[in-house]
Amino acid sequence: MQLGSVTTPAGFQAAAVAARIKYADRPDLAVVFSDSDCAAAGVFTQNQVAAAPVIVDKETIAQRNGRIRAIIANAGNANASTGQPGLSNARATQQIAAQSLGCDPDQILVLSTGVIGVQLPMGRLKAGIETAVTQLSPQNGQAAAQAIMTTDTHAKHTAVQIELPGGTVTIGGMAKGAGMIHPNMATLLGVLTTDAKIEPDLLQQMLATAVNASFNRISVDGDTSTNDTILLLANGASGVTLNDAASGQTFQTVLTELCTKLAHMIVRDGEGASKFVEIQVTGAHDTNDAHRIANTIATSPLVKTAFAGSDANWGRILAAAGRAGVAFDQNQAALWIGANQTDELQLVAQGTPTAYQEAEAAAIFALAEFKIRLDIGCGKETAVVWTTDLTHDYVSINADYRS
Amino acid sequence: MQLGSVTTPAGFQAAAVAARIKYADRPDLAVVFSDSDCAAAGVFTQNQVAAAPVIVDKETIAQRNGRIRAIIANAGNANASTGQPGLSNARATQQIAAQSLGCDPDQILVLSTGVIGVQLPMGRLKAGIETAVTQLSPQNGQAAAQAIMTTDTHAKHTAVQIELPGGTVTIGGMAKGAGMIHPNMATLLGVLTTDAKIEPDLLQQMLATAVNASFNRISVDGDTSTNDTILLLANGASGVTLNDAASGQTFQTVLTELCTKLAHMIVRDGEGASKFVEIQVTGAHDTNDAHRIANTIATSPLVKTAFAGSDANWGRILAAAGRAGVAFDQNQAALWIGANQTDELQLVAQGTPTAYQEAEAAAIFALAEFKIRLDIGCGKETAVVWTTDLTHDYVSINADYRS
Repeated sequence: MQLGSVTTPAGFQAAAVAARIKYADRPDLAVVFSDSDCAAAGVFTQNQVAAAPVIVDKETIAQRNGRIRAIIANAGNANASTGQPGLSNARATQQIAAQSLGCDPDQILVLSTGVIGVQLPMGRLKAGIETAVTQLSPQNGQAAAQAIMTTDTHAKHTAVQIELPGGTVTIGGMAKGAGMIHPNMATLLGVLTTDAKIEPDLLQQMLATAVNASFNRISVDGDTSTNDTILLLANGASGVTLNDAASGQTFQTVLTELCTKLAHMIVRDGEGASKFVEIQVTGAHDTNDAHRIANTIATSPLVKTAFAGSDANWGRILAAAGRAGVAFDQNQAALWIGANQTDELQLVAQGTPTAYQEAEAAAIFALAEFKIRLDIGCGKETAVVWTTDLTHDYVSINADYRS
Repeated sequence: MQLGSVTTPAGFQAAAVAARIKYADRPDLAVVFSDSDCAAAGVFTQNQVAAAPVIVDKETIAQRNGRIRAIIANAGNANASTGQPGLSNARATQQIAAQSLGCDPDQILVLSTGVIGVQLPMGRLKAGIETAVTQLSPQNGQAAAQAIMTTDTHAKHTAVQIELPGGTVTIGGMAKGAGMIHPNMATLLGVLTTDAKIEPDLLQQMLATAVNASFNRISVDGDTSTNDTILLLANGASGVTLNDAASGQTFQTVLTELCTKLAHMIVRDGEGASKFVEIQVTGAHDTNDAHRIANTIATSPLVKTAFAGSDANWGRILAAAGRAGVAFDQNQAALWIGANQTDELQLVAQGTPTAYQEAEAAAIFALAEFKIRLDIGCGKETAVVWTTDLTHDYVSINADYRS
C-alpha cells in the first residue's frame, strides 16, 4: 500500500530543507502550503509552560480562522521557555514566511519541536524558509514528515480517501512523537490536511473529537510536552462541502481512524520502545475513572520495565491501578492478558490469582504486541490507552539527548 | 559513629533468620519483640489494592492499640493481591507468632514485602518464626534491618537519644525501600521503637506528623506500593512519660529528624540511583500546590534521565512543572540549581533563560548530590521533595526482578 501524506489532498504542497536549526546533516524545516485559503482547527498542549508557537497559533487561528495558507515547522528547537524574545521570534517567522509566500503574517501557523530554553537561530531559519518556498511541490509530503522528526526513527504520514454523496474528499496527515509523549488535550506535533470544504467551527469540533479518541489515548513516558499541537487545514479544493449529517459522520469516523493510525505509529516508534501494549480498563463507574486507571498503569515505571523484561509480573499492574485515585474493591478485580481480545488468559479473578500456567503468561508478555484487560467491577464504562515499555534505550536516548 | 537500631531503646529484642520465603541464601524473616506491652501507631498505604498485612495491622492496632508485643516481617513475598487466602495467611502468622511468644494473636503486627500475587509459604514461615523466637536478643537490631531488605543494597537503621526533663528516652528505627517508592500517606516498610511512655492517640498523631514531613516527601519511581507501612511501638521501658508540652515537642522534632534520616537513606539507596536530588518549589499559593509541582518534577522520566546523564537540561524541569495541574504564569518563573542553598546558579529569570555558563550548570548536574529551586511567583508557600535519577540500573533491576 502506498502511504499518503499531507499533500495527498488536492491543493496542498510541501517542502523540506536542511536549515541547520540544530542538526548539521538533515532536513529540519518543513513548509506545508495550501494554494487557497483554509479553514483551520487546532488542539494544543495544556502545559502551563506553553511554547511560543503554541501561544502564537492560538491567537492566529482565533483571528484568521478561515484564511490560513501555510504551516512552518522546525525540528531541533522547541522555542519554549524562551520568554518575550521567543514570542517575537515566532511572530518574526510568520512575517518571513508571509513575505516569501505573498500572504499576510496572520495566515501562517508555526510549529517547533526540540530542545527547550534556547532561542531560535533566526538567520538560518529565514534562509531556510526562503529556500523552502522555492521548492514547494505536491511531491514533498513525505519529505516534510521527515523534516519534523527529532528522536523519531522514521517519518509518520498517511492519507485516506472518502467517498461521500457529494464526491470524493481526501484527508492527509503527518505527525512526530517519540518522547515527552503523554495525553493531555493534545500530544506531540501533527498536521492534518483535507480538500473537503468545512466551516471552521465544525472543523474544530471534529478535530477535538478525533484527537480525544486517538492522540489523547497514548502515552510513552507520561511527560506532556510544552509544544503539543495538532493542526487541521481544510482548503475545499475537492469542491465537496460537508453539509449533511451523514457526510459529517462519515468524515468524523475516517478522521478519527486516521488520527488513531498516526497515534499508534507514534507509540510504536516511542523512544526505546520494543513493545506495543493496549491497556483496557472495564467495569468502571465512568469513562474518566477507567481512563485514569488505564493511564496510571501505562505510566508506571514498574509496569513498563516488566513489559521490557517480558515478565508477566501482573501484581505491578494491580498496584498501579490501586494508586490511580479511583475507589474500587480489590476483591472484585479481574485481569486478563492476551495476544488479542478473543484469545485471553485470565490471571486474576475476584482479586485472587487464578491457577494459570506461568509459561503461558510469559509467552504473551514476550510478544511484540499484546493486550491487558482489567475489570474493576464497579460499573459498565471502559477506556483504552496504548503504550510502550521502558527500556535501556529510553534511558540512553534521554540521558544523552542534548549532547 | 555507632548507628543504632530498633533494639537500641530499652526493652526491645530482635531476631533474623533465613526462612527461605523466596531467597535461598540470606535472612528474610525478622522479629521485633518488646518485653512488655506497647502503645502502637501505624501509617499505611492508600493504595486500593492494599496487601493483606496492611488490612490485618489496621484492624489489630484498632483493637489492641495499647498491648502490642511483636512485629513479624518477611521479605520476598508481599502477600498482596492474594485474596481471602492471603488474609487467612496473615492471620495465621499472628497465631503462629503468638503461640511461640506466649501472647495473644492480636498483640502481633505483620509486615510483608516482595513479589505480589503469590501466596505465602506457610510451612517455611512457621518454621522460621519458631526458630527466630529462640534467637531473640537486644543485639539483633541490625540483623533485623538486613532481613527485611529486597532490592536494597544495604540495611537502613538508626537510633537517637533524647534528654528530657523527666529523663532520657531513645528512639530506634529501621526501614527498607529501593523500589515502588512514592509518597502517598506512607511509603515502604519502616519500624520505629521507643522506650518512652506515650499514649496511643498521641503516638499516632506524632507518627503521622513525622511521616508526612519525611517518608511522604521522597520518590524513587512514583509507584506507591500495596504494602507501605510505618509502625511505631512505645513500650515505656525508660520510665519516662511524655506528659508535658515541651517534652512532646522535643520528641516530635527528634522523631521527625529520625524519619527524615531513614527516608534519605531510602532515596540514596533507590533502585539504580546514582544521584540524590533535593527539589524545592517556592512562591506557591499553598503547600499542596508546591508539593504537587515538586512531585511532578521528581517523577518525570525526562527529568530523571537528565539527572542520570548529568545534562542540565532545565527545560524538562519547567515542562514537568507546567503539567502538574497547578496554574502559574510562566513569565514569573525562576529557576536555580546548586550544590547547596547558599551557592546557587540562576538559570531562568521571569521565564527566560539567563546568560549563565553551560559549563557551570553541567558541573552542578555532575555532582552526586545537588539541589533545584523553582519559584513560580504566585505566593509564599514552599515544599521540598527528595528524589533520584532514572538509570540503566533501574531498568535492569526491574526488568529482571522476579526472575
